[in-house]
Amino acid sequence: MENSIGKMLAITSFGESHGPCVGVVIDGCPAGLPVSGADIQSEVNRRRAGGSSASTSRLEKDKVEILSGVSNGFTTGAPVCLLIRNEDVDDAAYEEIRSKLRPGHADYPAYVKYGGFNDWRGGGKFSGRMTATFVMAGAIAKKLLAVIGVEIIAHTAEIGGIAAEAMSYQEIKKKATKDSLCCADPKASQAMTELINRTKESGDSLGGVIEGIALNVPVGLGEPLFDNLDGDLAKALFAIPAVKGVEFGAGFAAARKKGSENNDPFIIKDGKIMTGTNNAGGILGGMSNGMPLIVRVAVKPVSSIGIEQQTVDIEKMKETVIKVGGRHDVCIVPRAVPVVEAMMAVTLCDFAMRAGLIPRVIR
Amino acid sequence: MENSIGKMLAITSFGESHGPCVGVVIDGCPAGLPVSGADIQSEVNRRRAGGSSASTSRLEKDKVEILSGVSNGFTTGAPVCLLIRNEDVDDAAYEEIRSKLRPGHADYPAYVKYGGFNDWRGGGKFSGRMTATFVMAGAIAKKLLAVIGVEIIAHTAEIGGIAAEAMSYQEIKKKATKDSLCCADPKASQAMTELINRTKESGDSLGGVIEGIALNVPVGLGEPLFDNLDGDLAKALFAIPAVKGVEFGAGFAAARKKGSENNDPFIIKDGKIMTGTNNAGGILGGMSNGMPLIVRVAVKPVSSIGIEQQTVDIEKMKETVIKVGGRHDVCIVPRAVPVVEAMMAVTLCDFAMRAGLIPRVIR
Amino acid sequence: MENSIGKMLAITSFGESHGPCVGVVIDGCPAGLPVSGADIQSEVNRRRAGGSSASTSRLEKDKVEILSGVSNGFTTGAPVCLLIRNEDVDDAAYEEIRSKLRPGHADYPAYVKYGGFNDWRGGGKFSGRMTATFVMAGAIAKKLLAVIGVEIIAHTAEIGGIAAEAMSYQEIKKKATKDSLCCADPKASQAMTELINRTKESGDSLGGVIEGIALNVPVGLGEPLFDNLDGDLAKALFAIPAVKGVEFGAGFAAARKKGSENNDPFIIKDGKIMTGTNNAGGILGGMSNGMPLIVRVAVKPVSSIGIEQQTVDIEKMKETVIKVGGRHDVCIVPRAVPVVEAMMAVTLCDFAMRAGLIPRVIR
Amino acid sequence: MENSIGKMLAITSFGESHGPCVGVVIDGCPAGLPVSGADIQSEVNRRRAGGSSASTSRLEKDKVEILSGVSNGFTTGAPVCLLIRNEDVDDAAYEEIRSKLRPGHADYPAYVKYGGFNDWRGGGKFSGRMTATFVMAGAIAKKLLAVIGVEIIAHTAEIGGIAAEAMSYQEIKKKATKDSLCCADPKASQAMTELINRTKESGDSLGGVIEGIALNVPVGLGEPLFDNLDGDLAKALFAIPAVKGVEFGAGFAAARKKGSENNDPFIIKDGKIMTGTNNAGGILGGMSNGMPLIVRVAVKPVSSIGIEQQTVDIEKMKETVIKVGGRHDVCIVPRAVPVVEAMMAVTLCDFAMRAGLIPRVIR
Repeated sequence: MENSIGKMLAITSFGESHGPCVGVVIDGCPAGLPVSGADIQSEVNRRRAGGSSASTSRLEKDKVEILSGVSNGFTTGAPVCLLIRNEDVDDAAYEEIRSKLRPGHADYPAYVKYGGFNDWRGGGKFSGRMTATFVMAGAIAKKLLAVIGVEIIAHTAEIGGIAAEAMSYQEIKKKATKDSLCCADPKASQAMTELINRTKESGDSLGGVIEGIALNVPVGLGEPLFDNLDGDLAKALFAIPAVKGVEFGAGFAAARKKGSENNDPFIIKDGKIMTGTNNAGGILGGMSNGMPLIVRVAVKPVSSIGIEQQTVDIEKMKETVIKVGGRHDVCIVPRAVPVVEAMMAVTLCDFAMRAGLIPRVIR
Repeated sequence: MENSIGKMLAITSFGESHGPCVGVVIDGCPAGLPVSGADIQSEVNRRRAGGSSASTSRLEKDKVEILSGVSNGFTTGAPVCLLIRNEDVDDAAYEEIRSKLRPGHADYPAYVKYGGFNDWRGGGKFSGRMTATFVMAGAIAKKLLAVIGVEIIAHTAEIGGIAAEAMSYQEIKKKATKDSLCCADPKASQAMTELINRTKESGDSLGGVIEGIALNVPVGLGEPLFDNLDGDLAKALFAIPAVKGVEFGAGFAAARKKGSENNDPFIIKDGKIMTGTNNAGGILGGMSNGMPLIVRVAVKPVSSIGIEQQTVDIEKMKETVIKVGGRHDVCIVPRAVPVVEAMMAVTLCDFAMRAGLIPRVIR
Repeated sequence: MENSIGKMLAITSFGESHGPCVGVVIDGCPAGLPVSGADIQSEVNRRRAGGSSASTSRLEKDKVEILSGVSNGFTTGAPVCLLIRNEDVDDAAYEEIRSKLRPGHADYPAYVKYGGFNDWRGGGKFSGRMTATFVMAGAIAKKLLAVIGVEIIAHTAEIGGIAAEAMSYQEIKKKATKDSLCCADPKASQAMTELINRTKESGDSLGGVIEGIALNVPVGLGEPLFDNLDGDLAKALFAIPAVKGVEFGAGFAAARKKGSENNDPFIIKDGKIMTGTNNAGGILGGMSNGMPLIVRVAVKPVSSIGIEQQTVDIEKMKETVIKVGGRHDVCIVPRAVPVVEAMMAVTLCDFAMRAGLIPRVIR
Repeated sequence: MENSIGKMLAITSFGESHGPCVGVVIDGCPAGLPVSGADIQSEVNRRRAGGSSASTSRLEKDKVEILSGVSNGFTTGAPVCLLIRNEDVDDAAYEEIRSKLRPGHADYPAYVKYGGFNDWRGGGKFSGRMTATFVMAGAIAKKLLAVIGVEIIAHTAEIGGIAAEAMSYQEIKKKATKDSLCCADPKASQAMTELINRTKESGDSLGGVIEGIALNVPVGLGEPLFDNLDGDLAKALFAIPAVKGVEFGAGFAAARKKGSENNDPFIIKDGKIMTGTNNAGGILGGMSNGMPLIVRVAVKPVSSIGIEQQTVDIEKMKETVIKVGGRHDVCIVPRAVPVVEAMMAVTLCDFAMRAGLIPRVIR
């Protein structure tokens, strides 16, 4: 099951960027959850292009269709299949570069792995467009998590080296959702926008860092030895194209601290056990410890750039140059924010179900 | 299957730090692979304490026992079970702190998750000692990978903020294996040793960064959308206690680059397609691209320190202080180096088998 | 993953009898396999109602739609999603019996399990209609098996106690495909047809036995201890609604034989090792032995009958009677024949892929 | 994971008949279950040879060792590893027949599959001895099921064509456990014993039928479409060597009934919904319906017989004869009775855990 993730709540994605559709089957969803097309549509719209200067000019309508598993507005317990038809597809831009390997893209290993049979148009199943299926599944998972009070927020922490200032989770939540770059710090967002505009002019692209936060996570989610909460979250997040690093809490900075600095002391607050600091990012021994779960995800700059690059024509087996045409985002970080939320939601929901915390029938 | 990892080559670990043994079942191992106890023992010895100033004074004999799956010196195709009896166990040091939550350890979520029934002595199944089972499995996986020419090297890239200088993979391989801290840069190793000694005196601990390198990885390992090579490697590496971050190639630094800087141009060298740089760390679109696979792992400082820390007594539900006695490493980075290699080997071997590249009978 | 089966070739079914569609995602299908809608349609047509006196009058057009994984007539290596829209849906017949439990159907456990939220119309996901998704997946699996020469034939061995006479596999193949009841013995078919017609008049229904045969199965498919070829075939076949028993080779009759009668002696024929008899049905120790694989499947009589039956109204919690209206088959055995073939194909294909016998790229 | 079964409660078996040991890892076992070596030993003793005229003269001490997952008499939530050392091993009897394929055994496909590397002594991992690992796991599963009141009983329904008379489940339970052949009908048991003695003299062997019964199964266990309760039970039961058929309720007899005869009418009894008859064997639509779960398993006659049989020497590739020496059971049916119970227990426990019915911590 290469294209599936999760054990109790399992999602299977299918489709290609320039095929008839992209879709997802959500297996294991409890019965009785109220679900409407509009619920899922609103999440999908957050990922859609067009919101900011950072994104592609491909006009994605992305209309969500519910194919199964929902009846009279409630999940039935049967697998939920959600679909988005591909409409605004333009193959021409890709035709001329068909056999030229686009640097930074999956073209080369995909060509070798699938013997040239893979759908290369628009990246096929390697396209960022596939993350729309993650978002659809995430919309369901978020609703399931809401049943037990878990809340997930992601935001743009950094673009092109410009970092947002630290603030409280409630502030982040309030401000990031309103910002066109999903950045909670208006000053940083302004600077990012300017950098994006300058970069766009030069035909280049930018990366950044997304921070994901999960609040009210029950203590003890995650299964040692191998199905760790951090391990499975990392795996889910690396499924997002362009992610090159994942860290929890202090992450790589923890490697430079002393134990006495990095350990979070236990305290009692309002009758509950908590930690005074949160360098652990809410995870100890592969399990949630009840503190906010904090993950940071490194997103590489968009691979498709309007600048000539050196490459190889794989059919002629000759070195050549390529200038990737078509419509491309300058920076996908803002669009990836809801995708990070989705993958966090899917993973946390799976673990909550494995722990028996989400009932099999929601009433 | 919470305590298993892998699909075609799957490992299941069992045991506890202070129980009768730690062990591992390796399922799916092809028949005909020559395996001796000595092969596995030599890998286990690399992980064992005692090699350097950084490690615990617990004298671990760690004698490997082959319980199944090997007959007349060759694997039979049946599951291979490998065992290490626990011998030098000292419960007394743990008794007095039984109900005090050790900061940085799994005690608190484990207590909640298992209702107080988990084996708390020495961390039980959350102990770093469990990684001996990873190393045993990794020894088998490395031998299988050698059949197709894949080689894995890990080394200490950083301890306590002191970083080793960059050098070629062949140099790293030659030098790191001889160094007591598994560091390929003798000057850095010297500075690390001094820092470790100073830190030991103060009762504190250190973290660091391990770099893992896999050479000759065939093109196309990894299964999009979800069973990505990077995603599954990350999951496997987060199974190592103390890992808080994983990045591939340029990793978090890629987030600050432009596309034109980060994209690796394709070239032809010796008739083979390669990339001019390796910011991708050998992975494109979740698949190996034939370049050296480069992963960096952030290891937090050892949680057990000889310094008084604030904590909670969970049975009395009262704030208190703790000073963790027993024998502890100052820095586990050098001992984790073979563990990183093991988890890389297990994961790469699983993918190579899924791709049909390792025959079911080795001849 | 409750609605998935298979490891290397995995299928996930979704949809409901009276929802928008039924569909299936086939994950792990090698690239380069020539696939057209017509290939799949012809298999689906075999399962469709209307061919004989035994079947429902529901007019199923069952038009197959390829949603993903096929490009320019070849599989791409991405998951293949196949869909059939539901068209001729008549809910009215079900409305009046909504809360009355239909004897022999899944209504009662489904009501309890899904808290009344399951789509009860036409049996929802428990409908025999879901087997159309098995047949679509089976069509792909059969094409993959053909690459290595494996052939699968199923036929009606028995209906209502009337058994077909034994004959050679080649004869069965030739004759069963032409018969409206998929029975290779014309005399028996005639008698079955008469029995069906008489039973229809009385409003009652019939069951029967289907025999599945796989030829040219490579030696050694199946994974002891648990992923046995017989065990996984049985699991796959029990997924067909109405199946109540599965036996291989001599099956239950073997239980009454002596060892000297039941053991198949080994012989050499045309330079190949074979067995003189085939009481084992092609399976020894959970693995294929190269002889024809023979499985027999007991199909219970159709549960929906036009005769008044005693039952319970679950909402009123009162005993009552029910006469199931709507359109029903008298005997689903002939329509289940291609479904048996499909589940055999999916399972054998999965094992052949696990053994590395089907390449990941078909050329 | 070829040698594992189960999703929430998963067992992995290892070992060989004539290797150092046979063992099992039980993963997912809730914490807090009281477990002693004696609990498991008593189940293992039921399977052990020596109880009756039907069994081998191999003296199996089968002393159970708990290697992990149990501390202070309670499960810890960590994987439970249980081991039995092999003691009374006699390789000599097998040496002379090494390259001669034993009819009815796995020798031939195993030789091909593992390239001759498999441990052929005593059948290696294909030996019936591996079922001791099933029984150990079953002992744990039974204790978990007891927490929710589920009870499992299996008994000898038939040996060599001699069938026990039908009686109530309570009578079966009381009588079968006391009978040396696990048969609840003393007259039938007497006739079976005589047949076994006669058959032993002639060097031949016998098969039979085991019936498994599960009482108090909660309604709704089993996951359509594919993880059916009947499908997964069948898969688990086919893992027992020598099983050639599995049927539920009326089973193959249902194929010869009319719908009006086979459907079980729903009734209300003591305020609970039940069925008047139980032709369904407690399973509707792949889910438990609350009635007693009834499964019947066909066991072929023992393959090892003391009569000369035709076979092939695979190394000389020549036809020859074989007379299997060593110590063999005449009929394994009585010894397989606790194995059937064990596999039923493991499967039902897995489904009960998937349904969230067994808590993760037993208190």
